[in-house]
Amino acid sequence: MKSVALKATAVFLAAAFWAGPSMAAESLQDVMKRRGLSQQDLLSAAKTYTPSGKRDEFVAFSSGGQSGQVIIYGIPSMRILKYLAVFTPEPWQGYGYDEESKEVLKGGWIDGKEISWGDTHHPAVSETNGQYDGQFLFINDKANPRIAVIDLRDFETKQIVSNPIFKSDHGGAFVTPNTEYVIETVQYAAPLENRKFYPLEEFNEKYRGGITYWKFDRKEGRIDAAKSFSVELPPYSQDLSDAGKGPSDGWSFTNSFCSERYVGGIEQGRPPFEAGCSAKDTDYLHVINWKKAATLVAQGKAKKINGHDVLMMDTAVKEGILFLIPEPKSPHGVDVTPDGKFLIVSGKLDTHVSVYSFDKIQAAIKSGKFESKDPYGIPVIGLKDALHTQVSLGLGPLHTQFDSKQCVAYTSLYVDSQVAKWNFCEGKVLDKLSVHYNIGHLMTMEGDAADPKGRYLVALNKLSIDRFNPVGPLHPQNHQLIDISNDKMQLLYDMPLPLGEPHYAVAIEASKLKPGVRYKVGTNSRTDKPHPSAVRAGEERIERNGNKVSVYGTLIRSHITPEIIEVNVGDEVTINLTNLERAQDETHGFTVSTYNVHASVEPGKTSSVKFKADKEGVYPYYCTEFCSALHLEMQGYLLVKPKGWKPSAVKKETAKAAYTEADYRASLKKIADTQAVIDSVVGFITSTNYKDFPDVVNMVEDATDQLGKIPDSKAKHEAAAAKKDWDQANLWAEQVYQYQVKAADIGLRAKTYLEQNGAKKLK
Amino acid sequence: MKSVALKATAVFLAAAFWAGPSMAAESLQDVMKRRGLSQQDLLSAAKTYTPSGKRDEFVAFSSGGQSGQVIIYGIPSMRILKYLAVFTPEPWQGYGYDEESKEVLKGGWIDGKEISWGDTHHPAVSETNGQYDGQFLFINDKANPRIAVIDLRDFETKQIVSNPIFKSDHGGAFVTPNTEYVIETVQYAAPLENRKFYPLEEFNEKYRGGITYWKFDRKEGRIDAAKSFSVELPPYSQDLSDAGKGPSDGWSFTNSFCSERYVGGIEQGRPPFEAGCSAKDTDYLHVINWKKAATLVAQGKAKKINGHDVLMMDTAVKEGILFLIPEPKSPHGVDVTPDGKFLIVSGKLDTHVSVYSFDKIQAAIKSGKFESKDPYGIPVIGLKDALHTQVSLGLGPLHTQFDSKQCVAYTSLYVDSQVAKWNFCEGKVLDKLSVHYNIGHLMTMEGDAADPKGRYLVALNKLSIDRFNPVGPLHPQNHQLIDISNDKMQLLYDMPLPLGEPHYAVAIEASKLKPGVRYKVGTNSRTDKPHPSAVRAGEERIERNGNKVSVYGTLIRSHITPEIIEVNVGDEVTINLTNLERAQDETHGFTVSTYNVHASVEPGKTSSVKFKADKEGVYPYYCTEFCSALHLEMQGYLLVKPKGWKPSAVKKETAKAAYTEADYRASLKKIADTQAVIDSVVGFITSTNYKDFPDVVNMVEDATDQLGKIPDSKAKHEAAAAKKDWDQANLWAEQVYQYQVKAADIGLRAKTYLEQNGAKKLK
Repeated sequence: MKSVALKATAVFLAAAFWAGPSMAAESLQDVMKRRGLSQQDLLSAAKTYTPSGKRDEFVAFSSGGQSGQVIIYGIPSMRILKYLAVFTPEPWQGYGYDEESKEVLKGGWIDGKEISWGDTHHPAVSETNGQYDGQFLFINDKANPRIAVIDLRDFETKQIVSNPIFKSDHGGAFVTPNTEYVIETVQYAAPLENRKFYPLEEFNEKYRGGITYWKFDRKEGRIDAAKSFSVELPPYSQDLSDAGKGPSDGWSFTNSFCSERYVGGIEQGRPPFEAGCSAKDTDYLHVINWKKAATLVAQGKAKKINGHDVLMMDTAVKEGILFLIPEPKSPHGVDVTPDGKFLIVSGKLDTHVSVYSFDKIQAAIKSGKFESKDPYGIPVIGLKDALHTQVSLGLGPLHTQFDSKQCVAYTSLYVDSQVAKWNFCEGKVLDKLSVHYNIGHLMTMEGDAADPKGRYLVALNKLSIDRFNPVGPLHPQNHQLIDISNDKMQLLYDMPLPLGEPHYAVAIEASKLKPGVRYKVGTNSRTDKPHPSAVRAGEERIERNGNKVSVYGTLIRSHITPEIIEVNVGDEVTINLTNLERAQDETHGFTVSTYNVHASVEPGKTSSVKFKADKEGVYPYYCTEFCSALHLEMQGYLLVKPKGWKPSAVKKETAKAAYTEADYRASLKKIADTQAVIDSVVGFITSTNYKDFPDVVNMVEDATDQLGKIPDSKAKHEAAAAKKDWDQANLWAEQVYQYQVKAADIGLRAKTYLEQNGAKKLK
Repeated sequence: MKSVALKATAVFLAAAFWAGPSMAAESLQDVMKRRGLSQQDLLSAAKTYTPSGKRDEFVAFSSGGQSGQVIIYGIPSMRILKYLAVFTPEPWQGYGYDEESKEVLKGGWIDGKEISWGDTHHPAVSETNGQYDGQFLFINDKANPRIAVIDLRDFETKQIVSNPIFKSDHGGAFVTPNTEYVIETVQYAAPLENRKFYPLEEFNEKYRGGITYWKFDRKEGRIDAAKSFSVELPPYSQDLSDAGKGPSDGWSFTNSFCSERYVGGIEQGRPPFEAGCSAKDTDYLHVINWKKAATLVAQGKAKKINGHDVLMMDTAVKEGILFLIPEPKSPHGVDVTPDGKFLIVSGKLDTHVSVYSFDKIQAAIKSGKFESKDPYGIPVIGLKDALHTQVSLGLGPLHTQFDSKQCVAYTSLYVDSQVAKWNFCEGKVLDKLSVHYNIGHLMTMEGDAADPKGRYLVALNKLSIDRFNPVGPLHPQNHQLIDISNDKMQLLYDMPLPLGEPHYAVAIEASKLKPGVRYKVGTNSRTDKPHPSAVRAGEERIERNGNKVSVYGTLIRSHITPEIIEVNVGDEVTINLTNLERAQDETHGFTVSTYNVHASVEPGKTSSVKFKADKEGVYPYYCTEFCSALHLEMQGYLLVKPKGWKPSAVKKETAKAAYTEADYRASLKKIADTQAVIDSVVGFITSTNYKDFPDVVNMVEDATDQLGKIPDSKAKHEAAAAKKDWDQANLWAEQVYQYQVKAADIGLRAKTYLEQNGAKKLK
């Protein structure tokens, strides 16, 4: 019946599309009329709609703002694929609820205390030769200055490092062209010495900015804090940064606002920060030779502050690695062009973008041509000596990204709520497009790499106001997808952001991401090493050591081993669980009623939960993932016995089932019937070219896995039947049936897949 | 230039759509070819694509599974609008990070301890006469048996109540037809007395199931725990429930699995739960007269357990309010038909759905026709005496929802990975559609109400496997949108779920939701009452009481008042902040560096954060929302002074700016120029019929608000200039400019809106 239905549908649709309303169902024109779609809307729909099972061309990683997470979505479908837990505990992922991830979060504790959230701002994908390589992702926390390392082989957060000398950061994470370093820059100046108080009257003398270069060890996939260093900077509210590439490799650039060093105090009658911090026409672009800085640190020229290497400003000036250049007021982005020859800076209270020439900057430095020094003795290069060109784009220019076409850039205009397309070589505006509403950052595909991919642009709009169905006073953000393949930009899609306030995003070609779907059995995914408490099937056990109880268990459709855990009140209980599944997407979850633990255990992973059994009673535990038809039966009991409890003298047997021989025979018949279904499905699958479909090959492997568990249970029911123990015989026969159901489930899924994806009959 | 561009685009598109590839840009046919779209795909795209600014027809509320949150998305666009924080702290919303929401979470503490997550399963919208009224949403936590109340006027969680006698729940939340009660049912049996231990040998005697009827006080918008009660049930693993409606109003229905009362123990050589819990052919449907139960409780016939009213089984049997009916093995859903005449039950290990007749059930009860009693003395009605019909649908039928067309139902088939459309009056299958992959619940529009809306169905698939771009071992779920307006179901859209594992969802007509966008100034949104620590502009202050410091502050674009807070190390600091904005979407966030607090303060709201200033030093605070062009300057400093710290004898003044008269004159010129821009924008807006656009009227109000703040700063700069205090004169002039920038920003946004939405010139 199914294939007839499919055929009929195809015929109907052909008619609906080409012929019109002669049939009862809606034609394309009917739908467009009913939904008020224009022809442009239909074209946009065709450019973004991604049919079932088709993949996206690009994958975006967006900061999640105050949610503390990273948001991953596909382009052009604009469907969110994952909220990846980074700085904030998140139970679906077990993040912060299992022991392994708690260790990662503990790396981000500050002053010995838990920080349970983050204000993520700027993600960066690891680079090789200035090109995205898709191996790692880095992101900063502005509120509690930290950097997180995410491994894109399994999309898990592996490390959080706290900045040893900052009290906030904004200009991170940015990577150098071979990911030698991850850059993090101060936002609000404060004393560098930890817990050191100086009054605001000593702001100019004692408060400092700075930039940290975190050394990344690609082999370990971790930041090496001991090999990292910082450069002390003036208290200028450093903002965004970028690393040079190509000819400018070895240098980094950081802009700033409030170089006025103004301190507000509206409650004391002083004009607020916003007035004093934006009063002057220019701020300072910081130009730093990080390669030489690293050499100086290696030579021992850094000072230890809070145990961390800091190159002080006087050293930096003396050694000639730190320079300033005026930049239009209150800039936000500093963006190095793909060829590494220019830097583009937007002053958000100015209508211009300024294009600086790296060659000119170097020429000024080499010839010692400086227009002045700042109050800290840092040489200032004249604006006109560094400038390639300035272009008036509109109100509130903020951030620039690049096209695959030479010299073409896109800049967000916050106040105008527009995107400007312009040519930075010739200094001319090419196109403008209105967005909804105030746009912060924008992103083109791999648009800050040495080889941008063009095609799409996403406007990260900060206010959505009336764009979506209302959901209360707190609105989603709005990421608008724009087609940039033609001369004129075209708005394609409005995407609400349901959680968090993204600041910046990066997008990578989907083909560069090749994450795994399972771990080597017994892996601690947070260390990437074998978990010492992993066990294989049959090795499950419960150990007691004083008042410490350790459970070494396993998970597989649809039972947890062990199913009963008895402890005494006051025991410290650790439950280690290994997921024995090999099948893609066969995650099991685990929790114990009211003990506030949760683990998400993907295939092959070993996770632990730990708690003090501080209340007596009966606490069910269960698998929290709908993993199979019998998922609700994937359960067990934690029994917490009161102090001094003794079993009654005559031990009753656990509730008996009292099955009969007839029950057993009925179960055997059910098994035989089900086997016939399985055989027919297997017959169908093997009669096709299923080996050409890797997903089906995986399913067949999975089903074979389930069927492989049958002989053990079969031996048990036959042995019990031989002893006329009909309870055991029937129950183990039922277990055989359960394995069959799982195999049939997978087999039917494979069959459907083959039917829908044009599998061919083998001769 | 913009309008020319728009006109050109329209012309190009018309050509592209109707003529084909004669132009450089892609035609519709080109796009379809490049992206491999079939005509059916294009029709699906047209049915789901929602252009910028257009709204969805329905809004879905989905459980977020182990994320502990509720997911809100639009239909048919399948765009997620919000992740609403319910059981798990979430910093973007300030939930669990501000004092007001901490109180809500504290309501859900169990045994005096924090529970920081939940396993949400089944949302329910409040009903009036069995129809969705869009006022409240309820959802359960399976792991830590609790119910949350969400107010749909502001989409915030208002209350969490913990179940006093359960250790897990699954069959909640379901509401009675006028939301008199919210139903919650046990999943795994345990002793009802809290912290009471009985060994598993006493399972049949001492372990119990149960159902709780939470009394909902609609006026207060809160559950009234004191007026709530439970009914004790056998240890049968109660599962889903539904309330009767129409003729069956006053009754509720709950099914069960593992009525075998089997206890596993695979580690002890016993067959696992999954084998023993699914061995028998039938389980029990529980039929309860809740109206009479409420009367019995009022008459004092309940027993107090843990301080909560429980109608014990013997009372329930004696009073004739509790009955059982056999149901096919291991059922999941029990679903009352829209007319209230039938209940549909699916046994997930059976191929049939069973349609029970409420009339027949009542007839059996009235005539006392029972086939037996269960081990607890509960009368069992014969299956054949209650059955209307049984229909064989396929493998793993699970959950049923209803169409607007009479007698038409849809049932999910877990093992077959299909949706079956069938007629429950006549008992025949109408259509089947394959989904990807194993489907759990499904949802039609208002599909469990007395008046389902038809049109769309969403399949809540539990495994997505190969559907989306890979994001590591932990996969998103897949909600598939299906068009059910025609005889044949048509798959329209695949939607990944990026966080959490939804179990059940409900969808309501979008027009029924009318949330606000701002609060009355000074509201505690979690109590819906005036916040005692709210202040208006000009009332800001800092108070000290011993070592307790209370800050009463305000937030408005782009400054926090106060901007400097001085405390002594060891002080307990509470910062109360009122958002003075009236503009839609003008939320401000607030955090203090490394002190682990965060608030999301929507327009009109007052929020508090509290912490112990336990480390001396300098800690920046700032607004965490990108609220305006000067958002980064919306900052301040918390100064934590060490014990015994004294200011130096000669107090230095805070850094001076040293502006000149020329600076002041330049600022005045800038103000005049900006005013010219504002005047021109205002001229444009007022020359149109802008009053016909409510969103623009709001924007104009907002801009007027900003301009209204100018006279105060203007008076200040003029007074300072008169005294030749050029610093103060220039800075307050800059503040005038900042207000202008905000007004211009809004004005330009309004102008764009009018241009794009066809505003007309007034004569």
